[in-house]
Amino acid sequence: MIGRYDEVTARWGNPDKPVTLSEGATAFLTERVGAPKPTQAVPRIDIVVPPTGLDDQARARLIEVVGPEGVSLDEDTRLSHGGGFSYLDLVERRGTSPHVPDAVVFPTSHDAVQQLIAACGQLNLAIVPFGGGTSVVGGVRPERGPHAGVIAVSFENMADVIGIDDIDMTVTVGPGITGPTLERLLGVRGLTLGHFPQSWERATIGGYVATRSSGQASAGYGRSDEMVEKLRVATPKGEFRLGRAPGSAAGPDLRQLFIGSEGILGIITEVTMRVRRQPRDKRYEGVMFPTYEDGLRAFREMVSRRATADLMRLSDPEETLTNLTMAAEGLKATALARYLKLRKVSGGSLAIFGWEGNRTQIGSRRDESWRVLRANGAVSLGKQVGNGWEHSRFSGPYLRDTLLDNGYLVETLETATGWRELPELRKAVTKSLKDSLAGDGPGPWVMSHLSHVYDTGGSLYVTVVAARDATDPVGQWQAAKAAACEAIVAQGATITHHHAVGRDHAPYLAAEIGENGVELLRAIKTYLDPDDTLNPGALLR
Amino acid sequence: MIGRYDEVTARWGNPDKPVTLSEGATAFLTERVGAPKPTQAVPRIDIVVPPTGLDDQARARLIEVVGPEGVSLDEDTRLSHGGGFSYLDLVERRGTSPHVPDAVVFPTSHDAVQQLIAACGQLNLAIVPFGGGTSVVGGVRPERGPHAGVIAVSFENMADVIGIDDIDMTVTVGPGITGPTLERLLGVRGLTLGHFPQSWERATIGGYVATRSSGQASAGYGRSDEMVEKLRVATPKGEFRLGRAPGSAAGPDLRQLFIGSEGILGIITEVTMRVRRQPRDKRYEGVMFPTYEDGLRAFREMVSRRATADLMRLSDPEETLTNLTMAAEGLKATALARYLKLRKVSGGSLAIFGWEGNRTQIGSRRDESWRVLRANGAVSLGKQVGNGWEHSRFSGPYLRDTLLDNGYLVETLETATGWRELPELRKAVTKSLKDSLAGDGPGPWVMSHLSHVYDTGGSLYVTVVAARDATDPVGQWQAAKAAACEAIVAQGATITHHHAVGRDHAPYLAAEIGENGVELLRAIKTYLDPDDTLNPGALLR
Repeated sequence: MIGRYDEVTARWGNPDKPVTLSEGATAFLTERVGAPKPTQAVPRIDIVVPPTGLDDQARARLIEVVGPEGVSLDEDTRLSHGGGFSYLDLVERRGTSPHVPDAVVFPTSHDAVQQLIAACGQLNLAIVPFGGGTSVVGGVRPERGPHAGVIAVSFENMADVIGIDDIDMTVTVGPGITGPTLERLLGVRGLTLGHFPQSWERATIGGYVATRSSGQASAGYGRSDEMVEKLRVATPKGEFRLGRAPGSAAGPDLRQLFIGSEGILGIITEVTMRVRRQPRDKRYEGVMFPTYEDGLRAFREMVSRRATADLMRLSDPEETLTNLTMAAEGLKATALARYLKLRKVSGGSLAIFGWEGNRTQIGSRRDESWRVLRANGAVSLGKQVGNGWEHSRFSGPYLRDTLLDNGYLVETLETATGWRELPELRKAVTKSLKDSLAGDGPGPWVMSHLSHVYDTGGSLYVTVVAARDATDPVGQWQAAKAAACEAIVAQGATITHHHAVGRDHAPYLAAEIGENGVELLRAIKTYLDPDDTLNPGALLR
Repeated sequence: MIGRYDEVTARWGNPDKPVTLSEGATAFLTERVGAPKPTQAVPRIDIVVPPTGLDDQARARLIEVVGPEGVSLDEDTRLSHGGGFSYLDLVERRGTSPHVPDAVVFPTSHDAVQQLIAACGQLNLAIVPFGGGTSVVGGVRPERGPHAGVIAVSFENMADVIGIDDIDMTVTVGPGITGPTLERLLGVRGLTLGHFPQSWERATIGGYVATRSSGQASAGYGRSDEMVEKLRVATPKGEFRLGRAPGSAAGPDLRQLFIGSEGILGIITEVTMRVRRQPRDKRYEGVMFPTYEDGLRAFREMVSRRATADLMRLSDPEETLTNLTMAAEGLKATALARYLKLRKVSGGSLAIFGWEGNRTQIGSRRDESWRVLRANGAVSLGKQVGNGWEHSRFSGPYLRDTLLDNGYLVETLETATGWRELPELRKAVTKSLKDSLAGDGPGPWVMSHLSHVYDTGGSLYVTVVAARDATDPVGQWQAAKAAACEAIVAQGATITHHHAVGRDHAPYLAAEIGENGVELLRAIKTYLDPDDTLNPGALLR
């Protein structure tokens, strides 16, 4: 099920089975963005990987800590640890001069990480903790800063399940374990973490925690940061073991300093997460609202009436149109469209709901949800649409390289705000992207969905497709991204709901937590990591 | 409904309606702890309140900040801000030499608090933020430390609702508002905070947040720390405004540094909490389990099967016995006992459940709960027992002075741990108290209940009644409390689930978060409050 990954050129998909644009998709894009312009990425042979900057002494010291097997200077290995999966990362990978770390190091234990931090401090090397490498905000971009060099630390060899406790309902893991592996091992015990971000196939638990990732079923299972029971962290100031018991009131929650710290305060070496029983049953369902506003109201009321589904997402009319014409294929789409015309909700907003549990729970909870849905004009599209969504829930990233191959710019961004403020936020972000990316063609195409709900608001996930500026694709997107970020900040929304800050959002952190907040974080960073060894340039610039 | 409070001698109850021990209670206590030994507290006229240590310059400076109405040197006012409501506080209040602050100051705005902090820094005065004064861990004990004096800051004049947003479902308040006032103001809008700690009648929202308090219905409504959307905090380093949007992933959650910080890092001057719709209906129910172990298993399974009630508490056999003989009266108790004998669950464990929502929700959720309850041998005692519990849910504190008047030691303590570890924890804490407080009589009497549940465990709330040592009541309890804390730490449990750390638990903080954790907190404290103006001696010693 899980797509192979091209380690060398770091494309998301399986190189043996390239994703192609369907005829329908091509027509849709041509009409709304412009015709495809096939462009090729540079072949591997033309990519010039810079030589490592590590001298013999540094190499010897690293080998002392992690053994000869634990240090790789290999070009392809360094290339595949040269950044994440933002549009800018993808654009860079299509060129000849990638940024790569001077080495990739593979520790096998907490103590090795602790020693590695000390060694890098002495050697004046920066460390980029590299989990699944799925950051889309420059969180794992290798940055030397004022240091003599930069190494990526991979957790591939710290990826075990250390323990499962099905009385306490916890799992303890190394930071490098990925979602599929963990779910497989939990599954044989009838358990699940229930955390399914779109990057699930590649992202690691350490990465979840370091960036506060949110899974698609966060309404039912919570966010990754809420799942953390215990943390073990290596820092230049030594080891931290945090999370003594559920519901402790013993002072500030120091776990919450390391959760979301994106590797700048310490390196997570062990995590205990709470787990859940695997649901006996699931019911996914597509639903159509007459308008986006109807959908928003229904989502808000489902939350306030405690009538939520475990998974809830609401596409705006643009995304609805895209999904109906691009995702659903052939007959299915036609049948769906005909049905919608009959029920007079064409042009509406598509929602996906998922309820999980035993049959009676699903039945009664779905009834409660539908009481609210009906009152807001919703029409069921049935299980088929819901199951179709579930089937393709991780497929988004596979398409991105293909769109780049066809001359498009494609990127996503996300934010969150209160229920009252959501409609204006959507308008402002959409406008900022449209204005910034307006060209000669019909595009850009901007669409969004409400992806995660809270008592007090929700998050907005925006996708934009535009004609790529062939001469300055980087500048083109940087300007658009800046415009979107400024619109978000001006609306009082958060600069990130689940992508984290990384390097790309760092300029906006002060808008989020105030200058005093940034200075407080900097003081904490200075205390824990006085030499700025850990991921310099991320989060705080 | 809300008991008046004796401001002068700081007894919890209404001095005009003293609580007396019933005949049944007296018999129960005599058998298990020893006969009452009436002892009187010192009359107010014999209490010598130390004169203020503030010189003219200091008084003038404080008046400059908060106005002449905002500074009180009055003896009775200082007396009623001289500590909290722990057993040791109560014992001290029965003597002639209370600890009191040098002044009580009543700021009216964030800016005034900000200026007050600066003024106290210059005047070398310590500040104790004083909310409802209900701390049972010495959190508001006025401690001068190395300072020239200590003032208590009351938030009585910062107790307004600043705004209610019934779209975003938030309420913004001054820190001094109490539960009853807030619920009344929310109630007229059909809303509720849903936070009902036992100290609800007197505790303030600022206190909730600064100590991570948990309400009795935390299974349904969450803990106070989970309800905080936004915080405004005054610190010696200036203002912090935190909490930009629901579900932000922008770095470490700095709110979580101030939440639970017990006034040592800053003073909370404004809080935005999420609110809920008032439930249309409630159903409270008493339930009897054959054994405590059956009850524990049922509670754990209710959580893991997502079949929880909004309120869930499980008394151990000792507390069950106490409740049945002391709390339920006359006929009711007899009828109940007869019923239990018939159903063969006498000697069992009493649980109280509360489901809230609309009728169908309550019906289907209660059905789900009962599927688990039945499988674990539970028998319903009906609504009457549940409603009886709800009726007396805030009555616990009223009895304490009365027990002291009768020569008893009475105190509560609480902790939390994983499901697997709970039985051993209960045994160890019970043993530590019994060993430490064993005397010539039959006592002590130790009882507990499981008071709050989580995915991975629960909290244990322990009550102890013993014959008070007339010559050294303080030393007697200090030894017992130390023994209990050491037992808790040895079991790997948390030193506090919702009472916070204060001064009494500070020696055990390192066991909770490690020496490195304490040093990190100290570094943060040094950065934010270099002169140690804010609540010195609390949390960190």
